[in-house]
Amino acid sequence: MSRKIRMGMIGGGRGAFIGAVHRMAAALDGEMELVCGAFSSNPERSKLSGADLYLDPNRVYGSYQEMIDQERKMPEDIRMDFVTIVTPNHLHFGPSKLALENGFHVVCDKPLCFDLAQANELVKLVENNNSIFGLTYNYTGYPMVKQARQMVLQNEIGKIRRVVVSYSQGWLSTALEKTDQKQASWRTDPTKAGVGGALGDIGTHAHNLAEYITSLEITKVCADINKVVEGRQLDDDVNVLLKFNNGASGTLTATQVAAGDENDLSIKIYGETGGLEWNQMQPNTLIVKKLDKPTHYYRTGVGDLYPCTVAATRLPAGHPEGYLEAFANVYKNVAKCIQAKISKQELDPLHLDFPTVHDGLRGMQFVHKVIESGSSEKKWIQL
Amino acid sequence: MSRKIRMGMIGGGRGAFIGAVHRMAAALDGEMELVCGAFSSNPERSKLSGADLYLDPNRVYGSYQEMIDQERKMPEDIRMDFVTIVTPNHLHFGPSKLALENGFHVVCDKPLCFDLAQANELVKLVENNNSIFGLTYNYTGYPMVKQARQMVLQNEIGKIRRVVVSYSQGWLSTALEKTDQKQASWRTDPTKAGVGGALGDIGTHAHNLAEYITSLEITKVCADINKVVEGRQLDDDVNVLLKFNNGASGTLTATQVAAGDENDLSIKIYGETGGLEWNQMQPNTLIVKKLDKPTHYYRTGVGDLYPCTVAATRLPAGHPEGYLEAFANVYKNVAKCIQAKISKQELDPLHLDFPTVHDGLRGMQFVHKVIESGSSEKKWIQL
Amino acid sequence: MSRKIRMGMIGGGRGAFIGAVHRMAAALDGEMELVCGAFSSNPERSKLSGADLYLDPNRVYGSYQEMIDQERKMPEDIRMDFVTIVTPNHLHFGPSKLALENGFHVVCDKPLCFDLAQANELVKLVENNNSIFGLTYNYTGYPMVKQARQMVLQNEIGKIRRVVVSYSQGWLSTALEKTDQKQASWRTDPTKAGVGGALGDIGTHAHNLAEYITSLEITKVCADINKVVEGRQLDDDVNVLLKFNNGASGTLTATQVAAGDENDLSIKIYGETGGLEWNQMQPNTLIVKKLDKPTHYYRTGVGDLYPCTVAATRLPAGHPEGYLEAFANVYKNVAKCIQAKISKQELDPLHLDFPTVHDGLRGMQFVHKVIESGSSEKKWIQL
Amino acid sequence: MSRKIRMGMIGGGRGAFIGAVHRMAAALDGEMELVCGAFSSNPERSKLSGADLYLDPNRVYGSYQEMIDQERKMPEDIRMDFVTIVTPNHLHFGPSKLALENGFHVVCDKPLCFDLAQANELVKLVENNNSIFGLTYNYTGYPMVKQARQMVLQNEIGKIRRVVVSYSQGWLSTALEKTDQKQASWRTDPTKAGVGGALGDIGTHAHNLAEYITSLEITKVCADINKVVEGRQLDDDVNVLLKFNNGASGTLTATQVAAGDENDLSIKIYGETGGLEWNQMQPNTLIVKKLDKPTHYYRTGVGDLYPCTVAATRLPAGHPEGYLEAFANVYKNVAKCIQAKISKQELDPLHLDFPTVHDGLRGMQFVHKVIESGSSEKKWIQL
Repeated sequence: MSRKIRMGMIGGGRGAFIGAVHRMAAALDGEMELVCGAFSSNPERSKLSGADLYLDPNRVYGSYQEMIDQERKMPEDIRMDFVTIVTPNHLHFGPSKLALENGFHVVCDKPLCFDLAQANELVKLVENNNSIFGLTYNYTGYPMVKQARQMVLQNEIGKIRRVVVSYSQGWLSTALEKTDQKQASWRTDPTKAGVGGALGDIGTHAHNLAEYITSLEITKVCADINKVVEGRQLDDDVNVLLKFNNGASGTLTATQVAAGDENDLSIKIYGETGGLEWNQMQPNTLIVKKLDKPTHYYRTGVGDLYPCTVAATRLPAGHPEGYLEAFANVYKNVAKCIQAKISKQELDPLHLDFPTVHDGLRGMQFVHKVIESGSSEKKWIQL
Repeated sequence: MSRKIRMGMIGGGRGAFIGAVHRMAAALDGEMELVCGAFSSNPERSKLSGADLYLDPNRVYGSYQEMIDQERKMPEDIRMDFVTIVTPNHLHFGPSKLALENGFHVVCDKPLCFDLAQANELVKLVENNNSIFGLTYNYTGYPMVKQARQMVLQNEIGKIRRVVVSYSQGWLSTALEKTDQKQASWRTDPTKAGVGGALGDIGTHAHNLAEYITSLEITKVCADINKVVEGRQLDDDVNVLLKFNNGASGTLTATQVAAGDENDLSIKIYGETGGLEWNQMQPNTLIVKKLDKPTHYYRTGVGDLYPCTVAATRLPAGHPEGYLEAFANVYKNVAKCIQAKISKQELDPLHLDFPTVHDGLRGMQFVHKVIESGSSEKKWIQL
Repeated sequence: MSRKIRMGMIGGGRGAFIGAVHRMAAALDGEMELVCGAFSSNPERSKLSGADLYLDPNRVYGSYQEMIDQERKMPEDIRMDFVTIVTPNHLHFGPSKLALENGFHVVCDKPLCFDLAQANELVKLVENNNSIFGLTYNYTGYPMVKQARQMVLQNEIGKIRRVVVSYSQGWLSTALEKTDQKQASWRTDPTKAGVGGALGDIGTHAHNLAEYITSLEITKVCADINKVVEGRQLDDDVNVLLKFNNGASGTLTATQVAAGDENDLSIKIYGETGGLEWNQMQPNTLIVKKLDKPTHYYRTGVGDLYPCTVAATRLPAGHPEGYLEAFANVYKNVAKCIQAKISKQELDPLHLDFPTVHDGLRGMQFVHKVIESGSSEKKWIQL
Repeated sequence: MSRKIRMGMIGGGRGAFIGAVHRMAAALDGEMELVCGAFSSNPERSKLSGADLYLDPNRVYGSYQEMIDQERKMPEDIRMDFVTIVTPNHLHFGPSKLALENGFHVVCDKPLCFDLAQANELVKLVENNNSIFGLTYNYTGYPMVKQARQMVLQNEIGKIRRVVVSYSQGWLSTALEKTDQKQASWRTDPTKAGVGGALGDIGTHAHNLAEYITSLEITKVCADINKVVEGRQLDDDVNVLLKFNNGASGTLTATQVAAGDENDLSIKIYGETGGLEWNQMQPNTLIVKKLDKPTHYYRTGVGDLYPCTVAATRLPAGHPEGYLEAFANVYKNVAKCIQAKISKQELDPLHLDFPTVHDGLRGMQFVHKVIESGSSEKKWIQL
């Protein structure tokens, strides 16, 4: 018999940002419930956060190690099924590894981890344990992104020639990290974020989006990497020339110093016979261009869309679905996979449509090669 | 000590539309949990629906009467705190009344009920019982709608002169009610929907939106009411000239035969010194016009916004918040009010910002007067 | 042998607005040249204006009577072919009449004239003289407006059910007429503008646009007419319920107190199977909606468009054509008609596509009926 | 005494595209008139073209040499003042040189000429003859582009950090040059277009736009140059990383294989405190972003704009000005400069705001360096 999937959260205590996003996304569809958490490395703060969330105080832990250890010992019908990791980048690997080793499935915020070595190890752990590992490259959760991917696969725009993906934010236009802004401070700190700044934080989203929609792989990069704000240790403005494995060209941008930009992730893809255009800030519209024909505006919920698009949609046409709904699509599919695993029931293959540890590894590889290119005098760096 | 608020649902079983919306909206913020339900007047269907939702089968009831009766008898720390009513219009009054009489708070889908007599009785019941009654005029839950209201109140566009509100859908362009489309069939049936078709279904949203943002009252109407699709018994296309209590003029439109329109609720408000424009399909943008000045685009999460706007926002700028988030803002405020009542704690007045039974009564009055105007040869009908 | 058509201008001297527009529109295609003018009732001002335009001083006249008289006497290969009248409304009739009586063709700014009696007389004069009379309802000169009209005629959206046309400006939000702003002062003066303020100035454009695109006629109106700015003698804000001769309903708005609006003329037309949407401020886009299908964005110059659309287009796709180009389409067609008449050559029927004295008469009738409705207690007034 | 400036056209006969654009742009403001032309190297075709334009047959020439020779001999009050050259790239230099050497001013279509040697020679000729040489980088003629330039100069967005300019068309997505499409065939032919394909045709516009608005110079480029359509000899898809002389970074794109794109020239500029965004397909809007503030939409004709913006504007707010009006702004300023030179009157410095032979030289340098970069394994090439 099926039941709600039980989630334990690592990180995401008071003052955090992405923790609340994960909780809302996980709650939305009623497929999972938060049952425990290690919300902070400060046990008291963790307790307070747990109380905010109306959790049983006995299941609010002072560390992820404690949580995994205690939950592991609980009866099967009570203990958590998976952990969700919402800590800064340098704290992804530890809890992921421990959870996997103890038989828990994992959902982890992006990027996958701190460096390539960790990434490779996580891939092995997931494969060896036959675990489910969801990575919240949430932007590929949008219905119209899924539609775009299918349209490419179904050859609706012909062989792809050109890809322009850009993720442009302005919130780090000033040295925000020198104030006590928590989000800015760890993201600009190479000991916490890893080798990439804007590149790791948002460039990985852009990379994932481009490869997801096109079903292509980036094979060469030529990068211009900038640290625009004085004193910043990591990149905050990155432009990359791209080559894809089918010969297509393109550009990728990740910047956090585009003053006045909000969260402008956009992609344009051109094939031999047409083009696709999508912008995260108008996520329910997919612009479909045709050579010498009127442009079509595909919309969430309107007309004949691919099954994966429909499956990712909750509302009728014209009822805007946003960031949390896309995020929740990752969680929903993970929940369905865990549920199938637990109940040993057959799984609708549509539920396999979420980013995994393998996407995470690709993202880490991309970051490392772009960084390498940034300091190289050679034009092209092979991925 | 505060706790999650417990919700019992009436209606919203398999095949329904708005029930799932209410559940997602209620779940989003983790402030309430669904504990029981009477999802269908067919007990078996109700059971199946409860199982879909992973509910305790003992708390899945065959009728709302049974649910209210059984829950009333449960211990205080288990029984539901409020009912949420997601049935067709003609089934709003019965459960609302019974719930209120038994000390349960209520959230009800719009419009408030079937006719004016019911509406007046509900107002009295709520007042006499000192109950909390939330009505899901969800569109006023959007952050930018709240911003607009405050801007008007703070005189940022001067005295209001002109209001243009329009709710335009196309889904009833054909006689969909003659297929077995459940949503179409009850909405076009005067024994279930009441005297208004499009008018009751979406015109009430437009009315509520206009009065909410302007803080004005419509005092006179002159209506052109059409039944465009052959054989349809209720209006599907309504245009109304408006007069407001401050002398402003305007128009209100509610149509469901605007072929190709999705869910196009929009409003333009003009004052002596500027104008506001908002469209539900781009809900995170509020266009603010100034005489002979560049137009400003206010955006959810950007810059100095009013506290009520900030309180209605969950995400940073550029992370689209949609229909469900706005809907959830109604639930969140209701939850906070119930919580304050239960815990006898002080309530942040920001949480009082949700539509109530009184807004519902105004909506019913509006519907009845517009219908009256539609068949009158007199130009203006007083509200 | 064909030659450039020779134009004489009445009005449009220094400080005027619309005169320069007519001159640019007439010049654009090289089909006509300005050869003479009576630019002002002040002869000296007329001379100065003529000098600004590099005209032969001998053909710059102190009055339109003088111009018509003198030009009439000139050799056929020199004298003007037609007059263009760009004076305020109350000064349309006199020069139109005199020009027609003296065998000159006419282009006149809208509205046709001051009152219905004049309008009827002009129609007779044009018919009796077999003259060419172009009226610059310039908005129907846009390629995408012509496309829309053809799409309706070719039944691409089915029988029309609903028309929403709105012309919204903000420039008269204050009592600009009390400053020395020339444009404001005559437009708000009933002795110069006629019985309609915003209604005559821009409502007539909206009316013409709606009837042109739909090929329908408005048969009944119910109007709310407002004089919003204190002390204003003519309407500045008008909302009208409409009935069309095929049974369709709709609304028409003409307001000049929509603070912050520029020149927002828009129209939405809904048929049984789809809808059309056009906005003058994005004139090269025609939005074509289909029931349960992706929306199509038709664009000037893209794909297979109707011949009349192509004929009204000068540039390749994506090279914006604007107000002056649409205006010039009226002039170009008038020039071609005059040319055909002079040279006795066959005329491509596409060149007959411009507004005439008959459209002007309909506009005057509309204004008078809407004004009548505004002060009537009866709901509907028949046209 | 001032008079109309007299223009002779070289190229632009029947079947050409850009010739008609130049004629309309030159005619719009009534400051110049076409008096003669050598429209084709085929004398008969030239004659026919002249007749189409109602020209005196005696001033329709069979070659530009003949035209310059004959016109030179005419009396001063009749002969042309300048030539406008609208031939393919490889035919810019000859007529430019001859005209300059014979004392005629020049307007020339872009790019300046065929190669760098020619460009340098033309610069010297212009300087030595003290001639006026206008180059139709027409996109900098738009009012909102001028506004953007002034806002940068006035430090309204702080020191510039980032520039993204892209010119994207789709019309060469197929091997159109293998049909008899005249525009496609010379543009893809290295003996006529020069070393750059898309780069020369539209990349030069993008380059000019970026440098014009920012008042910066591009100092380094790193280019990815593609010939996407099989068999094409010149680039049709170019992506370039940029460095500017103030340290800013950016990207430039010129592609003609973006299937479904029309004429999408757009630019985004980010400074320390804000950003500017402009798109040629919505040319009357300039988006002005501010850190943590609502975005402002500046519009042609609305509010307090810089004098150069106002000078480039012909119509009131909301009356769209398009491509031809921007193009005409180049001509208008050239006309005013020639007029001042002829009449020896003082020139309003606002009229100096048009692209000259020096901008043309910069464009040629840019093309050559980008081409060099494209085949280099070195990352950065210095300009």
